[in-house]
Amino acid sequence: MTTTFIPRNLAELQTPAPLVDAALLAGNLALMAEAWPGPRLRPHVKAHKCTELARHQRDVGHPGFTCATIREVEGMVAAGLGQDLLLANEVLDTTRLGALVAAGARVTAAVDSAFTVEAAARGGVREVLIDVNVGLPRCGCSPADAGGLAELARAAGLEVRGVMGYEGHTMMVKDRADRARQVADSMALLEQAHAAVGGPIRSAGGTGSWDLNVSATELQAGSYALMDTDYASLGLPFGPALSILATVISVNQGGWAVADCGLKALGMDHGNPSLSDGSAVWFCSDEHIVFSPPEGGSLPSVGDRVRVLPAHVDPTMAYHERLYLVSDDRVQEAWPVDLRGW
Amino acid sequence: MTTTFIPRNLAELQTPAPLVDAALLAGNLALMAEAWPGPRLRPHVKAHKCTELARHQRDVGHPGFTCATIREVEGMVAAGLGQDLLLANEVLDTTRLGALVAAGARVTAAVDSAFTVEAAARGGVREVLIDVNVGLPRCGCSPADAGGLAELARAAGLEVRGVMGYEGHTMMVKDRADRARQVADSMALLEQAHAAVGGPIRSAGGTGSWDLNVSATELQAGSYALMDTDYASLGLPFGPALSILATVISVNQGGWAVADCGLKALGMDHGNPSLSDGSAVWFCSDEHIVFSPPEGGSLPSVGDRVRVLPAHVDPTMAYHERLYLVSDDRVQEAWPVDLRGW
Repeated sequence: MTTTFIPRNLAELQTPAPLVDAALLAGNLALMAEAWPGPRLRPHVKAHKCTELARHQRDVGHPGFTCATIREVEGMVAAGLGQDLLLANEVLDTTRLGALVAAGARVTAAVDSAFTVEAAARGGVREVLIDVNVGLPRCGCSPADAGGLAELARAAGLEVRGVMGYEGHTMMVKDRADRARQVADSMALLEQAHAAVGGPIRSAGGTGSWDLNVSATELQAGSYALMDTDYASLGLPFGPALSILATVISVNQGGWAVADCGLKALGMDHGNPSLSDGSAVWFCSDEHIVFSPPEGGSLPSVGDRVRVLPAHVDPTMAYHERLYLVSDDRVQEAWPVDLRGW
Repeated sequence: MTTTFIPRNLAELQTPAPLVDAALLAGNLALMAEAWPGPRLRPHVKAHKCTELARHQRDVGHPGFTCATIREVEGMVAAGLGQDLLLANEVLDTTRLGALVAAGARVTAAVDSAFTVEAAARGGVREVLIDVNVGLPRCGCSPADAGGLAELARAAGLEVRGVMGYEGHTMMVKDRADRARQVADSMALLEQAHAAVGGPIRSAGGTGSWDLNVSATELQAGSYALMDTDYASLGLPFGPALSILATVISVNQGGWAVADCGLKALGMDHGNPSLSDGSAVWFCSDEHIVFSPPEGGSLPSVGDRVRVLPAHVDPTMAYHERLYLVSDDRVQEAWPVDLRGW
């Protein structure tokens, strides 16, 4: 990692550079904190991988966080944000987590099998949630097995704080009524499991179910803070706080232009990004985005700046070393994206 | 970046972990070096972003390298590999390149417009190639404009070493005869430009045209060293040296398993990865790959290791801090992926 002078002016930033609009970020955090105040929201740091951003989430009232990797847990503890961390994922190598717990951090791990229960106990993790499959074919035990697994965990000396179940398969259901029904079906499964497990926590949900999930005791939303074009297609009231600043490096009179934001600056699993000015994106290469102007528009000039809106925020952030908090043309702060890796 | 103990045994590696098979890598490097010996190959470091791997490419005879970003150029110079670096991309902010040149590195930049010629001269870059559009709608001037641009560059005091033109649109043409024809068409355009530009270099090509491009004076191939499933589909004689080691963290008797290698460990623009054992990949999430066993196979157990074969090597490597050179179950070396970022 090179030491980098951080310019105060957007025009001087080297590109590609992830920009976070300070006002949109603050608005997104405030809106979610109003709906899910304090510990009712457990923001998922996988969406931004940035402890400075997490600090802003804590400052609007959320004491606990959700993590997807051991590195995220370690980084949050190192940043002084280890008051109540949930690793919402199964892990077998729990020694790094146990070391954090021994040093005073509060770390709760998800378990969905006898293997992961045994790993948690062996590694020194003291608290767990029973991870329940609520419809997404991924991790999680069947609701019918949750009670038995909780017994197993308690017999191994673990504190069972409750259940979690991510209704990820419902997040992108475009029709709101359909989405609501599917969320409710998933939460009925989680409630069934919870009745057998006990404990105060029923952790679930995400940005796509933020105003539909009426069952979760805590919501695990992450994308709401920065957003992406995929979530924007649902018509949620969170603003597109994240864009990637890029420089036009080549213009072809055949009708296209090229800017320096490519596959290595963008999560591509949800397809091509968009340009904020409505240009048509043709394709991305490793370090290029090729586009043509919007209907009736003219080609940009070499040196012009464009803003690229990612289709999927999480794997986008994982490519960048730092993000820039901006207000109009001013760079307010540079924040390390310090939770990358594993 | 955490300081990490590097185990000598594959079983002890934390996952996900990119593995490079030492024998396959050596075979790939040797095969390409036989076809394109010494300076006739200018290996593209964007495919691996690893100076240790580049050092192995130099050790089989290639003195010069191709880069896609300023950071790659800087990192190669810092590693002592700055004998003859081509930045095969347009850049406007050339001051970092000029500083390298002033300190004794040889850096040649691609230019395709008056803007980029002016930027090169202003920033202290002394040598350029005229980048020519040979059919891929991306950077590059039209062949008819190449001679005039070379004059402009020479008038600005720049040394014009020749031309480059990447026939990227032909790389994945599945039919070999078709691919050969399209490569030849592209190279006819590059030769036309070269006649007007002069200079010793006609730089072109990639892994997909390695045995079809009979016109390039130097080939810019990169993917051949590690390979991916997309290039493998062409039936090239380079072996799949790269895989991502993952751990099975959850198994569902409904017929699927989950391992810890997801979207943040894989370039996804070419679609889903594959599993080396032929399992069917269902989907990837941020930190998960969900799959079912191959026809007639049985579900793995929690804790089992699987190998994930990426569909696109370049954006995969850009996610990882280090790669592991392995031979069977032994970890021979850990190499930093030190050319990431911009």
